[in-house]
Amino acid sequence: MNIGIIGSGNMGTSMGKAWAAKGHKVLFSFSQDAAKLRAVAEAAGPAASSGTPSEAVAFGDVILLAVPWGAIAEALKAAGAIKGKVLFTCVNSLKPDFSGLEVGTTTSAAEEIAKLVPEAKAVESIPPMAQILAADSHRLAGQQIGTFYCGNDADAKAAVASLLRDLDLDPVDAGPLTSARYIEPAGMLVVQMGYGMGLGSNVGMKLLRE
Amino acid sequence: MNIGIIGSGNMGTSMGKAWAAKGHKVLFSFSQDAAKLRAVAEAAGPAASSGTPSEAVAFGDVILLAVPWGAIAEALKAAGAIKGKVLFTCVNSLKPDFSGLEVGTTTSAAEEIAKLVPEAKAVESIPPMAQILAADSHRLAGQQIGTFYCGNDADAKAAVASLLRDLDLDPVDAGPLTSARYIEPAGMLVVQMGYGMGLGSNVGMKLLRE
Repeated sequence: MNIGIIGSGNMGTSMGKAWAAKGHKVLFSFSQDAAKLRAVAEAAGPAASSGTPSEAVAFGDVILLAVPWGAIAEALKAAGAIKGKVLFTCVNSLKPDFSGLEVGTTTSAAEEIAKLVPEAKAVESIPPMAQILAADSHRLAGQQIGTFYCGNDADAKAAVASLLRDLDLDPVDAGPLTSARYIEPAGMLVVQMGYGMGLGSNVGMKLLRE
Repeated sequence: MNIGIIGSGNMGTSMGKAWAAKGHKVLFSFSQDAAKLRAVAEAAGPAASSGTPSEAVAFGDVILLAVPWGAIAEALKAAGAIKGKVLFTCVNSLKPDFSGLEVGTTTSAAEEIAKLVPEAKAVESIPPMAQILAADSHRLAGQQIGTFYCGNDADAKAAVASLLRDLDLDPVDAGPLTSARYIEPAGMLVVQMGYGMGLGSNVGMKLLRE
């Protein structure tokens, strides 16, 4: 495919190089540093070139949008119309300090519950599907299911982690109770896979780490 | 530990039974059917009993809250004060038809972007950390990283899935563009693990299935 890349930071550059190595043609665009942009294209080999965002749109069957959330308006203005093309957006609305998302998540069930019982030490964890927990084995494909938990009291979190371990789950400490804003939608994503996409109840998440 | 369980549906029942089998004492509460509640406790063995939500709170070192989002107010009213106890909440604000969350997620970067370029065929996927994509191998612990994608145009999604495969990622179809409301926070959760919790950039998600 011809791939026009808007945003040539770490993400756009890494993906573009890998695609060029796979035989796709890529055009990198949208960097504050034109010399860097040319260097990126050169490093990616003969299948890569550089240009402006509107050239990337004209060039690509697929347009990869890989700019920081704060640069979206500027990038799309420079791109112009993207009529009928595939726009592959990999933009998350990360705050500049990576502390959260700018749009979408406003609160969480855990935070609302904690407001209702302020004297309790609230810890949240969204466990795997109840059908899995009701089965003899709580593993999937032989692997422990990663189970995120969060809260503001260390001892309370340790108690919950220990109880998760007793369910043969892999407890993953995700920090303060506000992390429920990410844990709950991640849990919803599993529900969406199981029910919305029809994979059934034998689905779960795992955090891969090295 | 002594575990008081508020909410004795599939989730509370499955977890309570597993904990009782592990040697914890559990007290099940909050069912519309008192006979069913007693049967659940009986099936869980001698370490299990049943009672009211306020008895569960008095009994437990840890209180498991496992009721549907719509029953929270009623359940917590019946529970009374939960002073200084560990409140393990596993409540997600699932809509009754499992189609989404009642609180927290209001929109997504993908949907906002699609509004700005309505004639493009927007597909979103939040790839793994850029550091992983810049490395020679895009796998973690030998496993492909699960990479969710969503959009409203089947051909556009197929193109993006194929490009993700070319990055040696495991593309996972998560349905329509609105699924970005769950994919983006799940991506943020990975960022939180890498940066907020200090695990570094070699982290990623995988969808386990059987």
